[in-house]
Amino acid sequence: MPKGQPTVVPDDGLTTRQRRHRPLLMVYTGDGKGKSTAAFGLALRGWNQGWRIAVFQFVKSAKWRIGEQTALEALAGVHAEKGVGGPVEWHKMGSGWSWSRKAGTEADHAAAAAEGWAEVKRRLAEQRHDLYVLDEFTYPIAWGWVDVDDVVAALRDRPGHQHVVVTGRRAHPALLEAADLVTEMTKVRHPMDAGQKGQRGIEW
Amino acid sequence: MPKGQPTVVPDDGLTTRQRRHRPLLMVYTGDGKGKSTAAFGLALRGWNQGWRIAVFQFVKSAKWRIGEQTALEALAGVHAEKGVGGPVEWHKMGSGWSWSRKAGTEADHAAAAAEGWAEVKRRLAEQRHDLYVLDEFTYPIAWGWVDVDDVVAALRDRPGHQHVVVTGRRAHPALLEAADLVTEMTKVRHPMDAGQKGQRGIEW
Repeated sequence: MPKGQPTVVPDDGLTTRQRRHRPLLMVYTGDGKGKSTAAFGLALRGWNQGWRIAVFQFVKSAKWRIGEQTALEALAGVHAEKGVGGPVEWHKMGSGWSWSRKAGTEADHAAAAAEGWAEVKRRLAEQRHDLYVLDEFTYPIAWGWVDVDDVVAALRDRPGHQHVVVTGRRAHPALLEAADLVTEMTKVRHPMDAGQKGQRGIEW
Repeated sequence: MPKGQPTVVPDDGLTTRQRRHRPLLMVYTGDGKGKSTAAFGLALRGWNQGWRIAVFQFVKSAKWRIGEQTALEALAGVHAEKGVGGPVEWHKMGSGWSWSRKAGTEADHAAAAAEGWAEVKRRLAEQRHDLYVLDEFTYPIAWGWVDVDDVVAALRDRPGHQHVVVTGRRAHPALLEAADLVTEMTKVRHPMDAGQKGQRGIEW
């Protein structure tokens, strides 16, 4: 739905305008398909608003270049050439982050994840972006590679007007508690259950 | 996840390659946020594969131009200018479809929805596109504006290799039964519950 009416009007001392423009922490979780896809779809909307978008993919596979990266980088090109939309940065962990000089060892995912989160935290403090997509960030939290209390505090206290969307299964209860919007993607049926492998354009 | 292993290998006489490349009927349903966003995110992936994408928005509001439309049309422009990605067509019902000469009366949504579906059916028969996004198409089905048996038969018997994704709440059981992939987006928490109205870049 394009627009909606709130079901209650809270007594929080904010005007409707202030409340409307409150920056959001969003979590897409669950076992179903569509979590990352929905987050990248949200980036499309933000791009159209001229937002400064940054994607951080907390995934281990360095080989993984998904279609959304190419598409969003093409949109970043449209922004650079024609001044429409907003800029897009895409960072993926792989075997070391793009901003890092360290080549990174495949074995040291925990350190890489912690480094990625430290960078996100710095950027939040600097108000570098308008929308942060922290893709698959639930896993480094679940595995204890980053401290969930530190994550929640940094997100809760982030300055200015920065939207954050986190994707991944098994989102930590403290993260869900801090979120403004939580959608659980529930798998009802998936082609892999019927013996089908993932395919190009659908899974990546 | 970029790639996955099937949980079972079916005895269906198909090779892995044939099975992998089987065209999919996907349904994103449920009350949670992220259904349309995930479908448009899938369009990003398809664009990157050079697929011919067509979006059909079965929504009543003619005013509604969402960010994804601008972004996907910008990607269509990148395709036209630079030959990367694929072409994208975006059709919305509003008060009459773009291909229709009829201005359409606001009162006649049922006829407009039926006309939209008839056009989708023609294009499926002609194999015009590689990915069809039938956004909010569950509603005209639920309201009886299009016949669900006709929809299921046309989708089931579609020729060639055409992917279809349908979004919207209250998906008809017959549609779910016919689908290869179904994800239910469950609302766990939504800002509107806390009295917040929808905001630009997030809701549209």
